[in-house]
Amino acid sequence: MSGNKIVVYKEPGVVAVEDHDYPKLEVPAEVAEAMGMTRKADHAVILRTVSTNICGSDQHMVRGRTDAPPGQTLGHEITGEVVEKGSDVQFLEIGDICSVPFNIACGRCRNCREGQTGICTNVNPARAGSAYGYVDMGGWEGGQAEFVMVPFADFNLLKFPDRDQALEKILDLTMLSDIFPTGYHGAYTAGVTTGSTVYVAGAGPVGLAAAYAANLLGAAVVIVGDLNADRLAQARSFGCETVDVSADATLEDQIGQILGTNEVDCAVDAVGFEATGHGADAGEQPAAVLNSIMSLTRAGGGLGIPGLYVTGDPGAGDDDAKQGTLKVRLGLGWAKSHSLHTGQCPVLKYNRGLMMSILHDKAHIADAVNAEVLTLDDAPRGYQEFDAGAAKKYVLNPNGLIPAA
Amino acid sequence: MSGNKIVVYKEPGVVAVEDHDYPKLEVPAEVAEAMGMTRKADHAVILRTVSTNICGSDQHMVRGRTDAPPGQTLGHEITGEVVEKGSDVQFLEIGDICSVPFNIACGRCRNCREGQTGICTNVNPARAGSAYGYVDMGGWEGGQAEFVMVPFADFNLLKFPDRDQALEKILDLTMLSDIFPTGYHGAYTAGVTTGSTVYVAGAGPVGLAAAYAANLLGAAVVIVGDLNADRLAQARSFGCETVDVSADATLEDQIGQILGTNEVDCAVDAVGFEATGHGADAGEQPAAVLNSIMSLTRAGGGLGIPGLYVTGDPGAGDDDAKQGTLKVRLGLGWAKSHSLHTGQCPVLKYNRGLMMSILHDKAHIADAVNAEVLTLDDAPRGYQEFDAGAAKKYVLNPNGLIPAA
Amino acid sequence: MSGNKIVVYKEPGVVAVEDHDYPKLEVPAEVAEAMGMTRKADHAVILRTVSTNICGSDQHMVRGRTDAPPGQTLGHEITGEVVEKGSDVQFLEIGDICSVPFNIACGRCRNCREGQTGICTNVNPARAGSAYGYVDMGGWEGGQAEFVMVPFADFNLLKFPDRDQALEKILDLTMLSDIFPTGYHGAYTAGVTTGSTVYVAGAGPVGLAAAYAANLLGAAVVIVGDLNADRLAQARSFGCETVDVSADATLEDQIGQILGTNEVDCAVDAVGFEATGHGADAGEQPAAVLNSIMSLTRAGGGLGIPGLYVTGDPGAGDDDAKQGTLKVRLGLGWAKSHSLHTGQCPVLKYNRGLMMSILHDKAHIADAVNAEVLTLDDAPRGYQEFDAGAAKKYVLNPNGLIPAA
Amino acid sequence: MSGNKIVVYKEPGVVAVEDHDYPKLEVPAEVAEAMGMTRKADHAVILRTVSTNICGSDQHMVRGRTDAPPGQTLGHEITGEVVEKGSDVQFLEIGDICSVPFNIACGRCRNCREGQTGICTNVNPARAGSAYGYVDMGGWEGGQAEFVMVPFADFNLLKFPDRDQALEKILDLTMLSDIFPTGYHGAYTAGVTTGSTVYVAGAGPVGLAAAYAANLLGAAVVIVGDLNADRLAQARSFGCETVDVSADATLEDQIGQILGTNEVDCAVDAVGFEATGHGADAGEQPAAVLNSIMSLTRAGGGLGIPGLYVTGDPGAGDDDAKQGTLKVRLGLGWAKSHSLHTGQCPVLKYNRGLMMSILHDKAHIADAVNAEVLTLDDAPRGYQEFDAGAAKKYVLNPNGLIPAA
Repeated sequence: MSGNKIVVYKEPGVVAVEDHDYPKLEVPAEVAEAMGMTRKADHAVILRTVSTNICGSDQHMVRGRTDAPPGQTLGHEITGEVVEKGSDVQFLEIGDICSVPFNIACGRCRNCREGQTGICTNVNPARAGSAYGYVDMGGWEGGQAEFVMVPFADFNLLKFPDRDQALEKILDLTMLSDIFPTGYHGAYTAGVTTGSTVYVAGAGPVGLAAAYAANLLGAAVVIVGDLNADRLAQARSFGCETVDVSADATLEDQIGQILGTNEVDCAVDAVGFEATGHGADAGEQPAAVLNSIMSLTRAGGGLGIPGLYVTGDPGAGDDDAKQGTLKVRLGLGWAKSHSLHTGQCPVLKYNRGLMMSILHDKAHIADAVNAEVLTLDDAPRGYQEFDAGAAKKYVLNPNGLIPAA
Repeated sequence: MSGNKIVVYKEPGVVAVEDHDYPKLEVPAEVAEAMGMTRKADHAVILRTVSTNICGSDQHMVRGRTDAPPGQTLGHEITGEVVEKGSDVQFLEIGDICSVPFNIACGRCRNCREGQTGICTNVNPARAGSAYGYVDMGGWEGGQAEFVMVPFADFNLLKFPDRDQALEKILDLTMLSDIFPTGYHGAYTAGVTTGSTVYVAGAGPVGLAAAYAANLLGAAVVIVGDLNADRLAQARSFGCETVDVSADATLEDQIGQILGTNEVDCAVDAVGFEATGHGADAGEQPAAVLNSIMSLTRAGGGLGIPGLYVTGDPGAGDDDAKQGTLKVRLGLGWAKSHSLHTGQCPVLKYNRGLMMSILHDKAHIADAVNAEVLTLDDAPRGYQEFDAGAAKKYVLNPNGLIPAA
Repeated sequence: MSGNKIVVYKEPGVVAVEDHDYPKLEVPAEVAEAMGMTRKADHAVILRTVSTNICGSDQHMVRGRTDAPPGQTLGHEITGEVVEKGSDVQFLEIGDICSVPFNIACGRCRNCREGQTGICTNVNPARAGSAYGYVDMGGWEGGQAEFVMVPFADFNLLKFPDRDQALEKILDLTMLSDIFPTGYHGAYTAGVTTGSTVYVAGAGPVGLAAAYAANLLGAAVVIVGDLNADRLAQARSFGCETVDVSADATLEDQIGQILGTNEVDCAVDAVGFEATGHGADAGEQPAAVLNSIMSLTRAGGGLGIPGLYVTGDPGAGDDDAKQGTLKVRLGLGWAKSHSLHTGQCPVLKYNRGLMMSILHDKAHIADAVNAEVLTLDDAPRGYQEFDAGAAKKYVLNPNGLIPAA
Repeated sequence: MSGNKIVVYKEPGVVAVEDHDYPKLEVPAEVAEAMGMTRKADHAVILRTVSTNICGSDQHMVRGRTDAPPGQTLGHEITGEVVEKGSDVQFLEIGDICSVPFNIACGRCRNCREGQTGICTNVNPARAGSAYGYVDMGGWEGGQAEFVMVPFADFNLLKFPDRDQALEKILDLTMLSDIFPTGYHGAYTAGVTTGSTVYVAGAGPVGLAAAYAANLLGAAVVIVGDLNADRLAQARSFGCETVDVSADATLEDQIGQILGTNEVDCAVDAVGFEATGHGADAGEQPAAVLNSIMSLTRAGGGLGIPGLYVTGDPGAGDDDAKQGTLKVRLGLGWAKSHSLHTGQCPVLKYNRGLMMSILHDKAHIADAVNAEVLTLDDAPRGYQEFDAGAAKKYVLNPNGLIPAA
C-alpha cells in the first residue's frame, strides 16, 4: 500500500488521475490548527473505496466556476471498506462496508448534536459545513481514489449490515452518500407527502433523485422539467410526467395540461445557480428556477432548494451574481406565504432509512438515475460525458470491487 | 321522496332494514338544545347515499358491548350526492359527489380550528367528538340508508373533482370516510416513514388499511399479526409479511425470523379493547395488544393506537375493564421512551391527500381490504359474515349507484 | 343606526372620516360573483367597533405606494361587540365582545382547514388571502369605523370570555387582531425558543411586538435594530437590547459588543420592502433588511419575515422593485442552510393563546408598543404622527367604549 | 490524588461516604465486553466535581425499591471541571467547567444521532439508556464524589463559556444536569406553549422545575398539586397556583375554582410510580397520577410523563405493580385523543438553551427549587431530610468550589 491513485482537477475542463501518498489517520493541518484539534485522528478510519461517484457539484469546479486551484483532489460520494482504524473507533470493524455522507461532521458541536451535519462548525476554518475533495472546505482529500481517510468515523459512517448483500446492491447503495439523500431532502423540505402534486426543476441526477424520493414520500403526481430530452425520458422511465423548459408553451400551461391546474403543492429546485431561463435561447439566468418555482407553487406550498447557490461565482455574468446576489421575485413568494428551505442536505438524517428501503427492495435508485460503472482511469471520460448532458450517473470502481452486472 | 330505508340495531346480534322519515335540514333536538344551536341547519345538506360501509365499530354495538338501545340507527362510513342544501352552504352544488368524514365536526370550535375534528366540542352533549349512527354521540341519524343529513357541510364534506371518475373509483373512494384515514392515522402517529419497520396488530379492515398506509408512507417492511388465516392472506396480497398470534412461537421470535431483530421501529394497535391474548386459547385480554406492541417496539419507537378503547364496556369480564381501566405494562413503555398516540382519527386531516393518491392510481385500497358490494337489504348478512371473521370489507349500495365491476 | 362613520383614503398623505351606509349582512358583490357565494351572508355578524388600530400596512396605501383608489375604506385591526347576526351564526350571542383577525377567512377551503387562514382561497378574487379595508383584497369594507360586517363569524371571531374584563384590558386585547400575532408569527417562524438569541429588524409596532413575543417564547437576549431613537427607547423599556442602524459601526460589530459573537440564532424582518440601507444616508434599498438578517444569523438559524413584500410597488425606484423583484444575497443564505418563512400571519393560529396570556397578566403588549387612544375623528392626526415616526401605536375609539385609563 | 470520596448506598435508608480509587479513563469492564468497546477510553475525561445534587430517583434505590446492591455508588447530577482528558477529546480543555447530562450517551448510535440520548444503545448491556451511579445501568461510577469519569466527553459535556460566571451562577447551573431539563421535557412534551393552562402533579424538585419550565414556555396559568404544604408554598413562591391532593375537594373542583373550568390544556406527571391516591389516607396507588392527569386534561391535550415508571418494583404492593403493570384508565385517555409521552429526558436536547436563559438572567431555577448546599460528608443528612419531605433541593459541594452565597 505505497500509494493512492486519485482524480485531480488540472485546469478548466480537465481532470486527471494521479498518484498520491497513501492516506494517514490525520486531519488536515489547516483544520487541526484553526480548530484546536490534534492532527492525530484516533477517531478516523481508512477506507478502501468500493465505489465513488461523479457529482454535478464537482462539475462546478471542473468548469472553472470556482476558485479551485490546479491539483485540487476530487470526490465526495464514497462507499468503502474499513481497512484501518484509530484507537477511538469503537463501533466499526475492519472489513465493514460503509457509506460515507459527503458532509464531513464532527458529531460533537451544537449543529451536529442537533442533526444539522451539513453545517458542522468544527471541520472547516472557512465556514460551517465541509466535504471531501472540495475547494474552500478545509483541505480534506477527495474520495475518487483507491483509499480515503474518514474522520469521526463512528459518527459519520453508515455501516451496511451484510457484506455480500451490500456488494450485490452496491449500485443502489452508492447513491446514499449524496444524491439520494440530497434529492430526498429537497422533496422532504418542500413538504411532499401522501397525495402531493410536485414539480422538480432539473432532471440531472439530483433532480431525478428528488423525483424518485417524491414518489417514495407518496406524491400523487411528480412532474419533472428540463431542456434535455434524454434526461426527461429518464424521468418518465419511473413514472414521472415531464415538461420541456425549452418549449414555447409556458411551464404553467404545460403543467395545467397535466394537472388541470397550473400550480403544484410542492416544488424542488434541483438546478441551482447555473440556471438557464425559460425558452429556446434563454441563456444563463441564475434566479430563473427560483422565480419559476415560486410562480408554479400554490399559496401555502413548500419550496425545497437543494440546488447549489454560492457566495462567490467568479464566472458569473454580472457583479451581483459574482457574489451570489440574485434577482429574486420575493414579493410573489411572500404573497403566497411560501417557505424556502435552502442548504446542503444533512445526509445522516436520511441515509439509514433510505438504506432500509434499498435493502428491502422498496427503492431502486440506480435504475432511476441510470448508473454506469467506469474504472478509475476512465474518470476523465465520465466528467466529459456528464458535462455534455448524458442522462447517466457515473460510478467509479477504483478497486474492482463492484461486481459485474 | 317520502321515506328513507335505514339499517337499525334491534338486539344483540340482530340488525334490520327499516323505513324512516326522509331526513330534514335539522340538527338533533338534544344537540341543538345542549349546544345552543338553532335546530334549523342552514349549514347542512341532504345526501343521496352512493356507498356506505359496515365498520368494525358498528359491531361493538351489534354485539351488545355498548349501551346502544334497540332502534339505534347505524352507519358512519358514507359517500353521497348532494340533493338538497341549506342557505349557508356556499361551496357545494346539487349533484356534487362527496366523501363524509365519520367524525361530525362544526368547523368553528377551538379543536376544529386546530384540525382536531375527531374531538369537536359543539356536536355531542356527552363529550368531545361525534359520529353518525352511534350510541352516546348526540343522536345523529346513521348513514347506512338511502339518504342522510350532513351538518356543517362546507366544512365537513370532501368533494370529488369529477362525477364520472368518482363513480368509476367508488370502491376505493368509499374507504375515505373512515378506514383508510383511520389506518393511515395509526401508521402516521406511530411515526412510520421512509425505511421504517412496522408491526400492525390486527388484520381486520382497519389493520389492513394501516398496513397499506404504512407502505404508502414508505415502510421498508410491514408485518401484520392476527389469528385469522384468511385475513393474514389478505395482508400478504399487497406485500406484507405476517405473523400468527395463535401460534406457539412468540411474536418476538416470529418477528425475529423476518427481520433478524425482534423489535420494530413503529407499531399500530388496530384491535382495541376486544383484544385476545397470545396463543391458541388465550381468550379476551383487553390490554393484550397494547402490552404486546410496547414489547415489540424499539426504544424511541412510536405507537399509534387507532383501535378503539372505551370508557364503558358493560360486557367486559371484570369491573376494571367495565369502566375502561386496563392492566398496562407502562413501566416497559417508559423504559423505552415510548409515546402513545390514541383517539379517533381526524379524517379531514388526511382524506384529501389519500383521495389524490386514489385518483392518480397510486393507492388501491379497495383491493387491499377486499371490498364486497351488497344491497342495502343484504346489510344483515354483511354484519353476520363480518362478525364471523370474513376477510372482507362490506360496502352497501342503497341507491344502486355503484357501477357493476 | 342610519349611518357609519369610517376612515377613507383620499389621496397620497390624506385620509378623511366620512359617513357611509350602515353595513349589511352581505358579502361584496365582486366576491359573491367570482366565488359563487350568495350575497346574503347568513354566516356574518355586524359588530359595533370597540377599538380599531392604525397599522403600518395602512400607511403603504396612504403614502401612495399601492394602487388604492381614492375612497378606499381603511382599517383591519378590529375589536367589536356583536349587534346583529345571520341565521347560521350558531356560537356567538348579541353582546359578545370579540377580536377580529385581520385576515378574512371562509373556514371551509383547504387552506383554512389546514390552519392557513392568511391564504384563504374563497374570499378574494385576485389571489389567496384577504383583509378588511385593503386594496385588491375583494372590496371588504374597512373597520376604522363605527360598525363593520364580519363574514364567517363563528369561524373568524375570537370571543372574549367576560365583557367587563375585556373592556378593562381592551388596550392589550386590541392588539390581538394583527400586530401581536404578526410579531409572534415572525418570532415563532424564526424558531425562537427557550434560550435563543434574537435580532429583530425594525422597532415599529410589529417589530416591538415581535421582540415582545420573542421574550414570551423564552429568548435569552432580544436585540432590536432601527434608526429611530424613540422607537429604540421603546424597545429598551421592556428589556431588549438595541442597535442603531444609522450608526457608523456595522450591525455585526454592534451585536458582537452585546453577545460576544456577531451572529444570532434567529432573526425577524419586521420592516419589509420599504427598507433603507445601513448608515446615515443610505436611502431606500428594498432587500437591505433581508440581506442583513441572512448575514447576522448563524448557520442553521431561522428567518421569520412578517414584514410585507409586495408583487407590485408603483412607487419603487427601479423596474425590478416595481414588480417585487429584489436583489437577494441568496448564496449566503444557502451556505448557512437558512430557511426563510414569509407571508401574512394566520392570526387564528395564535390569538387564543395570546389572549390567555393577556387575561392572566402574563403579557402587557399595550405598554410595549405604547398604545395611545384617539377618537375616530382624530384618525387623520394618528396617521400623520405615525408616518412621522412616533413611537406609538394608535388605537381609535369610534364609539367611546374604551374606558378612560 | 490518591483517592476519591464518594456516596454509597449501604442498606435501605442508609447511605455513607466512602473512599474509593481515583477514577481512570476506562469504561466499566461489563460495558466494554458486552458492547465491543475498548476499556481504554480515549474519549473520556476526569472531572473534579464542582457540584452534584441528590435526586428523587436516587431515593428509589435508597428506600430499597430497586435491586441496588449494597455498595452501589450514587450520583448522576454532576457539574465539574476537566482535570484530565483522553487523546481523542478534541474540543475541551483542562480547566473547562462543564455540565454533565445524567444520561450517558455514546453520540454515535442511531438514537444518539437522532437526539434521543436518553436511550443510547451502546452504554448499557441491560437495555437502552444509562446513567451514572445507578443500578442496572452498566456499572458507571456515581458522581456524588470528588472526582468522576465522563465518557464520550466531547459529545456529552456542555461547556460553560466563562469560568467566573459559571461559579457565580453555579446553584442555577447545577440544575442543568437533570431536573431543569427533566422538568422542561415534561412541560414541553405535554405541549405547553404561549397561553396554556397547565397542571403539574407533584411539587418535588422535578415538579417545581416542570412548573418553572411551563412558565418559561409561556403558560398562562400553572397549577401544582401535592400533599406537602411546604412544597406547595415553594410553588407559589414563583407565581404558581396550587391544589392540595389530600383535601376533601376533588382536584377537578379545586382546578375549577382557579380556572372556571375543571380541565387544563396540558398536564405533567412529575411523580411516577410511587404515587399516592387522592384524599387524606389514600395510600400508594401507582397509577393514581396517570389516571388523574387524563381526567384533568382536556380532549386534545398533551400529557408529559417525566415521572419514573419502572419495569421492576420489588417493593410494590401487588404482583402486577412488581413488574410495572398498572391499572390505567386508557379508555378515558382514548376518548380524549390524548398522547402520552414517557421516558427519560434527553438532557442534551435542552441544556444549552436553558443555560443561555440562566446566563442571561431569564431563569432562576435554584430559587424555584430552593437549593441548599451541603458538604459531601453531610450527604446522608441530605438524603434523610429530602426523604422526609423537605421542600429543598440538596446540592453537594465535594471540593469546596461552590462560592459562599
